[in-house]
Amino acid sequence: MAHIDLNSDLGESYGAWSMGDDEAMLSIVSSANIACGFHAGDPTGIYKTVKAAAANGVTIGAHVSYPDRVGFGRRDMDVTPEDLIADVIYQIGALKGIAAAAGTTVRYVKPHGALYNRIAHDAKQGQAVIDGIKAIDPSLVLMGLANAPILELARKAGLSIVAEAFADRAYTPDGQLVSRREKGAVLHDAGQIADRMVQLARLGTLEAIDGSVIKIEAQSICVHGDSPGAVDIAREIRRRFETDGIAVRSFTS
Amino acid sequence: MAHIDLNSDLGESYGAWSMGDDEAMLSIVSSANIACGFHAGDPTGIYKTVKAAAANGVTIGAHVSYPDRVGFGRRDMDVTPEDLIADVIYQIGALKGIAAAAGTTVRYVKPHGALYNRIAHDAKQGQAVIDGIKAIDPSLVLMGLANAPILELARKAGLSIVAEAFADRAYTPDGQLVSRREKGAVLHDAGQIADRMVQLARLGTLEAIDGSVIKIEAQSICVHGDSPGAVDIAREIRRRFETDGIAVRSFTS
Amino acid sequence: MAHIDLNSDLGESYGAWSMGDDEAMLSIVSSANIACGFHAGDPTGIYKTVKAAAANGVTIGAHVSYPDRVGFGRRDMDVTPEDLIADVIYQIGALKGIAAAAGTTVRYVKPHGALYNRIAHDAKQGQAVIDGIKAIDPSLVLMGLANAPILELARKAGLSIVAEAFADRAYTPDGQLVSRREKGAVLHDAGQIADRMVQLARLGTLEAIDGSVIKIEAQSICVHGDSPGAVDIAREIRRRFETDGIAVRSFTS
Amino acid sequence: MAHIDLNSDLGESYGAWSMGDDEAMLSIVSSANIACGFHAGDPTGIYKTVKAAAANGVTIGAHVSYPDRVGFGRRDMDVTPEDLIADVIYQIGALKGIAAAAGTTVRYVKPHGALYNRIAHDAKQGQAVIDGIKAIDPSLVLMGLANAPILELARKAGLSIVAEAFADRAYTPDGQLVSRREKGAVLHDAGQIADRMVQLARLGTLEAIDGSVIKIEAQSICVHGDSPGAVDIAREIRRRFETDGIAVRSFTS
Repeated sequence: MAHIDLNSDLGESYGAWSMGDDEAMLSIVSSANIACGFHAGDPTGIYKTVKAAAANGVTIGAHVSYPDRVGFGRRDMDVTPEDLIADVIYQIGALKGIAAAAGTTVRYVKPHGALYNRIAHDAKQGQAVIDGIKAIDPSLVLMGLANAPILELARKAGLSIVAEAFADRAYTPDGQLVSRREKGAVLHDAGQIADRMVQLARLGTLEAIDGSVIKIEAQSICVHGDSPGAVDIAREIRRRFETDGIAVRSFTS
Repeated sequence: MAHIDLNSDLGESYGAWSMGDDEAMLSIVSSANIACGFHAGDPTGIYKTVKAAAANGVTIGAHVSYPDRVGFGRRDMDVTPEDLIADVIYQIGALKGIAAAAGTTVRYVKPHGALYNRIAHDAKQGQAVIDGIKAIDPSLVLMGLANAPILELARKAGLSIVAEAFADRAYTPDGQLVSRREKGAVLHDAGQIADRMVQLARLGTLEAIDGSVIKIEAQSICVHGDSPGAVDIAREIRRRFETDGIAVRSFTS
Repeated sequence: MAHIDLNSDLGESYGAWSMGDDEAMLSIVSSANIACGFHAGDPTGIYKTVKAAAANGVTIGAHVSYPDRVGFGRRDMDVTPEDLIADVIYQIGALKGIAAAAGTTVRYVKPHGALYNRIAHDAKQGQAVIDGIKAIDPSLVLMGLANAPILELARKAGLSIVAEAFADRAYTPDGQLVSRREKGAVLHDAGQIADRMVQLARLGTLEAIDGSVIKIEAQSICVHGDSPGAVDIAREIRRRFETDGIAVRSFTS
Repeated sequence: MAHIDLNSDLGESYGAWSMGDDEAMLSIVSSANIACGFHAGDPTGIYKTVKAAAANGVTIGAHVSYPDRVGFGRRDMDVTPEDLIADVIYQIGALKGIAAAAGTTVRYVKPHGALYNRIAHDAKQGQAVIDGIKAIDPSLVLMGLANAPILELARKAGLSIVAEAFADRAYTPDGQLVSRREKGAVLHDAGQIADRMVQLARLGTLEAIDGSVIKIEAQSICVHGDSPGAVDIAREIRRRFETDGIAVRSFTS
C-alpha cells in the first residue's frame, strides 16, 4: 500500500498570541514540527501542543530556528557555527524535556524559516545544524528540502534523513521550488493540489511550472495550518489520500 | 570521613557579557548550578560551562528561574502554576540537552533568585516547581534552603532533596537567614566563614547572630564566584576543608 | 452637550502575531492606548497603528507595562522604583518617537495590565510611574481607575489626570470593580452595557451589583477590541451615544 | 586651533551585566554613542549613562542596532526596510525620551556593529536608516565610516553627516579599513596610535598599511572603552591632543 507522511508547523502560538489551528491540524497530519521557543512557542503552549500531538499519535519533530522572535525566524542571520550548534542543541533539548513530560519523544528535526532555506544550500551553517543534532542525539532524523544539498550532507554525516515536498508550491523543471517572488509560485486550488500530491505519493513525480514532469523523491509533504484556507487544503489532501488508498503515516512508522 | 558538597551558580554570562569566574569555581566546587537561559546563560556559554564542569568532574544542576533576564531573575513574579510547571520543564530540558551533548547528565535542580526565595515558603509555586521536576524526570534532586518548608513538600511528593546552607550569610536563632536588609546579614571575613563552614560540616551547627548555637542540617554549602573576593572566600573554604580532612564531594556521589 | 471619551488598547500585535481589530476600533474610540513594546507591540506594528490613529483623529496614549512579553504584562512583578521610572521613560520615549514620525503626539499614559492594577493602590510603584512621566514630559495626562488612590497621588504630584470606567465590568456598592473571580463581574449584553454607559455619561452614576446606584466620576470609558464580540459591544456603545446625543471625544479636546 | 571629536560606545551594560568603563570614558570623549536597548542597554543603565554624559558635557548619539541582544548586534540580519525604519525610530525615540528626562538632547545617530558595517555599502538598508532618522528628527546628524558610500547617500537625502576614523585600525592604500581577518588590522601601541591621530587631526592624513600616505576626512575619531587597555589608549590620545594643542570637542559645538 502506498503511504506518505504529512507534516505541518505547530505550537507557533506565543503567550497571549495565538497562531494556527493546532487541534484541526493534529487530526490531519502524521508529523508535527513543534516550535522550540526561538521563533515561536512559549513553554506552556508548546507543552499543550506536544500533549495533544501525543494524544493524536502524531510524531514530534523539533522546529529549530534562528533566535529571532520578532522576525518569526524568517530573516537570514549570520550566526557562527559555534552559536548555531549550541542554539540547535538547546532548542532540541527543551523540546525533548517537554516531550518527556508529555510521555512522548522527539523523533526528528526540521529547521525553520530562514534557517531552513539557508542550510538547504549553505554547507557551513548546514554542517553546524548537523553537528548540533549529532551532539545531542544522533538517532534524530533531519527533515529537509527534497533535492537540496543539505540532505546529502546529513546522510554523509551519518544522520537519517527525510526529504519533503511542499503541497502548495510550484516546482521548476529541475526540481527546485519556484521563488515566491515569481507568478504562480504558490498554488491555491485544493483539488489541484490534492491531485498533485496523489501523483507525488503514488509515482514520485510532479508537473513542473513549464508542464514537464519531474521526479521528486519525498517521504513527507508539508501542509500549512496558519489560515482557515490552508487547513481546508490540508484536509482535502488527507481526504483524497484516504479515498485513493494512500496511507498517511509518519516516516518513523 | 566527614564530607560535604560545595555548590555555586555558574554559566551566568550572556552573549558578549561575562559574569563570574567559572573556570576558577570549577576547581573549587563539587556541584554547579547552571543557568538555563531564563535569568542568564546563552546556549553557547552554557554549553561551554557544562563541558568544563564535566571535564572537572563537577555535578550539574539546573538553575531554573522566572523568565526575567533584564532583572536577572531577582524580581518576584506572580507566575501561574501552569506556566511555572512548563517553564521549569523547558529549562531543565534545555540543560539536559546540552549536558547530553557534553557527555554528562543533569542531576539536580536549584531554583534561582526570586523563585528560590518564594518557593521556600510559597506552597503553590513550590508545588508547581515540584510538579515540573517530576514530570520531566523524577530522579532529579531538588536543592533548597535548609529548614524551609519546600524541602518537606518535595520529600512528601517523592523527590529526593538536598538542603543547603549559605557560607557568607548570618542565621537567626531559629535557623533562618538574616534578611539582607539587616546589619550583619552578609559575612565577609574568609577565615571566619571557613571556621563556620568547618563547624557546619563536622557538627551540623552554626553560631546564630545572637551567639546561640543552632542546628543546620545541610548536605551542601553555597559559595559565590561573582567577584574576586567571593572566589577567594570559596577557595579558603575549600582549602580549610582539605586541611581539616573534610571531603568536598557531590551529594550524588 | 454631554460628551465622554472612549479608549481602547491598540497596537497589541507582535511581529507575525496579530491581536485585536485596530482598524475597526479606530472608527469607534476617541483615544488609543498604544502598546510600547514591553507587553506587546513591535516597532513596525506600533508605527502602523499610530499612523492609522493619526489618520482617524484618535488621541494617542502610551500603554506602558512591566517588561513581560510572554506574560503579556499581566503578571505582578516586584520592580524597584528606579527600574520602573526608567522603564516608563523608555517606553513613553519610544512611542513619542514613533508618534513624531507619524506626525502626531503622545498625550497621555495609561499603565497596562498588572502594572495598572498594582499602582491603583500601591503608592510606591504608583509614585515611580508618576516620577517617570514627570521626568520625560509633565504635560502628559495619567489615565487611571476611577476611585483609585493613584489618581489623587498623581494630582498631588502635579499631573493632569483622567479617570476611566470599564464598560463591561460590574461595580461594588463602594465604587470598586467586582473581582473577575466573582460571578457577574463581566457583563456581556451589548444593549445593557450601552444603557449603563449612557447613564454614566449623562448622570455620572451606575447601578452597582447589589442594585444600589453609585457615583462614578469618569471622563473616559474603556472598551475592548480583542474579539469580534468585544468590537460589537464597543460599536453599540458608540451607536447609542450618537443616537442619544452624547459626543464621543477625547478628554484632550 | 585644530580640533576634532572623540566618540565611544557607552551604555552597553545590561541589567546585572556590566560592560565597559563609562565613567572613565566620559572624562575622555566628547561624544557618546549610547546603546538603545536592541544590542545592549537596559532603561535603568541607559538613563544612568545619559545623566553622566550630560553632567560631563558629552554630546549624546543614538547607537541604533539590529534587534539581536544575544549576538550583541554583531550578526548581519536581512531586515526589511520597513522593519528597519521602524526599529530605528523606536530606538532613537526611546533614547530621546531618556535624554529629555536627563535634561539633555540626542544630537546624532551612529548605527552599531553589523548594521554599521552593512549600511556603509548597502544602499537599501542604508536608505532605510536614513528614512528612519528623517522621519523622527531630520536635524539629527548621521555618523558613519569615512570614505563609505553611506555618507554621500545621507548627504543627498538632506541629513548632516559626520565621518569617523578608527583610532586603532589600519587602513588600506585606498582609504578603507583593513579587514580584521588580516594581520596588522588592529593597532595596539598607544604611542603609535596617538601619533597617527595627531596627524589625522592636523593634516587629515594617515599612513596606510603599505606605507603610503592617504587622505581621511574625518570629523570624529572612534575610541574604545571595553577593556582597561582600550581605556588607556583613549586616554593617551586625549593627553596627546591636549599637549599638542588640538581641542577635543563635539562636532555639534
